[in-house]
Amino acid sequence: MLLKAASQSLTEQLAGRFAERIRNRLLASGARLPSVRQCAQQQGVSASTVVAAYDRLLAQGLVEARKNRGFYVREMATAQEERAQPAINSVASTKSSTGFQPQHNPVNATALIRGMFHGSSDKAQPGMGVFPMDWLETSFMPAAVRRVTSARALQEFSLNYGEPAGDSGLRQALSKKLASLNIPAAPEQIITTVGATHALDIVSRTLLRAGDYVMVEEPGWAIEFARLAAMGMRILPVPRRADGPDLEVMARYCEVHAPKLFVSVSVFHNPTGYCLTPGSAHRVLQLANTHNFHIVEDDTYSHLAPEHATRLCALDGLQRTVYVSGFSKILAPGWRVGYLAAPPELVERLLDTKLLATLTTPALLEKALAWCIDQGQLRRHAERIRTRLDIARARSVKLALAHGCSFAAEPAGLFGWVETLVDTDALAQRMLDEGYLLAPGALFHAARQPSTLMRINFATTQDAAFWKVFAKLRDGMK
Amino acid sequence: MLLKAASQSLTEQLAGRFAERIRNRLLASGARLPSVRQCAQQQGVSASTVVAAYDRLLAQGLVEARKNRGFYVREMATAQEERAQPAINSVASTKSSTGFQPQHNPVNATALIRGMFHGSSDKAQPGMGVFPMDWLETSFMPAAVRRVTSARALQEFSLNYGEPAGDSGLRQALSKKLASLNIPAAPEQIITTVGATHALDIVSRTLLRAGDYVMVEEPGWAIEFARLAAMGMRILPVPRRADGPDLEVMARYCEVHAPKLFVSVSVFHNPTGYCLTPGSAHRVLQLANTHNFHIVEDDTYSHLAPEHATRLCALDGLQRTVYVSGFSKILAPGWRVGYLAAPPELVERLLDTKLLATLTTPALLEKALAWCIDQGQLRRHAERIRTRLDIARARSVKLALAHGCSFAAEPAGLFGWVETLVDTDALAQRMLDEGYLLAPGALFHAARQPSTLMRINFATTQDAAFWKVFAKLRDGMK
Repeated sequence: MLLKAASQSLTEQLAGRFAERIRNRLLASGARLPSVRQCAQQQGVSASTVVAAYDRLLAQGLVEARKNRGFYVREMATAQEERAQPAINSVASTKSSTGFQPQHNPVNATALIRGMFHGSSDKAQPGMGVFPMDWLETSFMPAAVRRVTSARALQEFSLNYGEPAGDSGLRQALSKKLASLNIPAAPEQIITTVGATHALDIVSRTLLRAGDYVMVEEPGWAIEFARLAAMGMRILPVPRRADGPDLEVMARYCEVHAPKLFVSVSVFHNPTGYCLTPGSAHRVLQLANTHNFHIVEDDTYSHLAPEHATRLCALDGLQRTVYVSGFSKILAPGWRVGYLAAPPELVERLLDTKLLATLTTPALLEKALAWCIDQGQLRRHAERIRTRLDIARARSVKLALAHGCSFAAEPAGLFGWVETLVDTDALAQRMLDEGYLLAPGALFHAARQPSTLMRINFATTQDAAFWKVFAKLRDGMK
Repeated sequence: MLLKAASQSLTEQLAGRFAERIRNRLLASGARLPSVRQCAQQQGVSASTVVAAYDRLLAQGLVEARKNRGFYVREMATAQEERAQPAINSVASTKSSTGFQPQHNPVNATALIRGMFHGSSDKAQPGMGVFPMDWLETSFMPAAVRRVTSARALQEFSLNYGEPAGDSGLRQALSKKLASLNIPAAPEQIITTVGATHALDIVSRTLLRAGDYVMVEEPGWAIEFARLAAMGMRILPVPRRADGPDLEVMARYCEVHAPKLFVSVSVFHNPTGYCLTPGSAHRVLQLANTHNFHIVEDDTYSHLAPEHATRLCALDGLQRTVYVSGFSKILAPGWRVGYLAAPPELVERLLDTKLLATLTTPALLEKALAWCIDQGQLRRHAERIRTRLDIARARSVKLALAHGCSFAAEPAGLFGWVETLVDTDALAQRMLDEGYLLAPGALFHAARQPSTLMRINFATTQDAAFWKVFAKLRDGMK
């Protein structure tokens, strides 16, 4: 809210707010600012204050005026925008292998990440992808760190680069954990990484080269799209259904484009919460065998998963699948520990990629994590989180329904995929004014289409106050 | 040494030794095994033992027999080898922009890294690039970790992703440190990374795309060549002279290939130990301005540098230069903390690349490192290491000269660039039999040419026993 009594004038406050959002890319390049009249009304200030604020943004080179059409955020030259080749192919363009439509790359995907780090508000953030910090507090985590940082131990593993594949104790613990998911991975098939993000990056860099075709699920995780686009890959979005990816679309892509890789979240798919069925998994693997592509299965939500969840890597036995997961969701995002498990013949190549990119990963946190797993602490902690999430989800779903929303997918896991009936890009801008970060549906599409959907985090949407503000602003847009 | 009394037969031991070296790529694809007679003589076993061992390797698919020519290590399909395009252009091929000679990629660069991690021998390793662990032992490092891991602090920075650019305390400390090197970098221009390797990777990924031309120094750091080749870049090797890179070659490359980037180690260049002169630095920057390329200056050996060493980033004021350094050489390789400092207009793009690749980096070790810098502990520790290295270098140089070696570059810094007058690839294989890892000159060439040079680490070559073995095996090859 703009404050009259603040040390800055209303004009300065308003210009400053827009400037910050543009810099953090919460207002995308090419986005239109509200009209002077709209903005004055929304912010409760005079039209002349808005005009003065927009002039200031103009002078700062952050926006441009288009004749009779208002003010637009200026295009900023980014790495992605400099790339000429179209990175995304829609289903519609698959009939001809050369008929690509140049489309905007998802340059604003990083805005969502940046948002995760901007503590600009003390409110629970519906758009975030993680649990609130107080959910993750444990006494065993500091105990684990104390255990591995006795002076002698610390010198031993700090003063050398450590094992290329990662701490062997952790890899043994992970091997056992994967066995319990029916995924056969010897410690030698496991490589630790700087979070699951780094694992996905290593797999892409090893299996793909610029210009290759990659199938991704749509809706899907924006960061994955952005990374593949930045690497010069051609993205083939496969619609994700309740039972799994759309197999007909996949089959058509395979025939026309011979994609090299399929990136998939089987369990508690982000943002829908869908879980893959065994039948669908079987057919995906058949397709992979017929058309000779690899699959990387991102099991980020592994710790929240139901006991008998279906995973491609379990059916396939890590033949042409690579498993990726991490601990940022359930334990300590700041530790940045993730891992991958791969077919034996890929391990050396993946390890080379890790070495060329970062050499090794820090052993301290890997050792602490191994202790947490071996002691059973992590398992018990995950159980507690699951119970707490079930309660939160029930409450959040009730509030969403009571405020006129519906769910585009059966609520499950951490995220809800919510139908709002208004443009969620515009709604997200209005909610930011109130201190709430939303995750608009457009962010989950490979080629940012406008969307009336949004992703909510069940752990951060239990507060009726949020839903009240949400309903009010949404209704104002109808 | 092969042991008769061991539980394995001599054949098993010999086959096992070759197999391990092939798997670790200390014996490169396409390399010829010694003749049966040679091998029998070198190892002190019968010819039939060698034949049986080679047969075993043949059966394991690790080597192939070529008619009347002996046994060769089989080509293993690697990511690099699958790439069709030639990644390296020699100076000779620069006259025509299309006249590239396909050459072998430096696929064995990773062997050197792997070697760094294989503690197969308790001897000091002349080929390693780091200080021995006992050189790095300090009491302040554990103190720093204890300081930042009090239960409360630990929860605070573990339970969220942390700042995208890295811990702000560390970035402030680094900003001050860079100011003392006359490099003007505000904390906002600094991004922390998983070691200097990761920083170099981020810069390459941000500024280059597959097929771009990159100038590197030759001889130079093999990992850098391997990473650029794996990314599909075209490498232009610039001969490194005592005063700096060969400016005529650089100018010619600029005219023919319009390279996007020059990767340079100004201070204590690896492997020669050369330091850039101010005049040469000025001309390199002039060339960069004229031909519009960026420069990434790898200052890995920063902590060993003389006080008034010339750095491109200081002359340029971070206009078209990016500074990269880390703490693995001087403090704790296992912490994996590095950083980059960049021109303001590049920072956001570099930060996006970091986020897409790893999200954030672990705050714990960054906070501990900030404390070490702020307390002055790191500076005093570096002084002690420099004094110790001076003594070690004097002793090592004396031993090298006494054993018939000469220095291809004036000894300085951590590494000596030593003329042996024999093929150092072959010598390195023989030295491995004795438990010594050498760094043969071929590893430092973008297109692995045979070389009679080798790089030694002054900290690990003070032992007369090593030089005695070295001289004996070398003389046997003459």
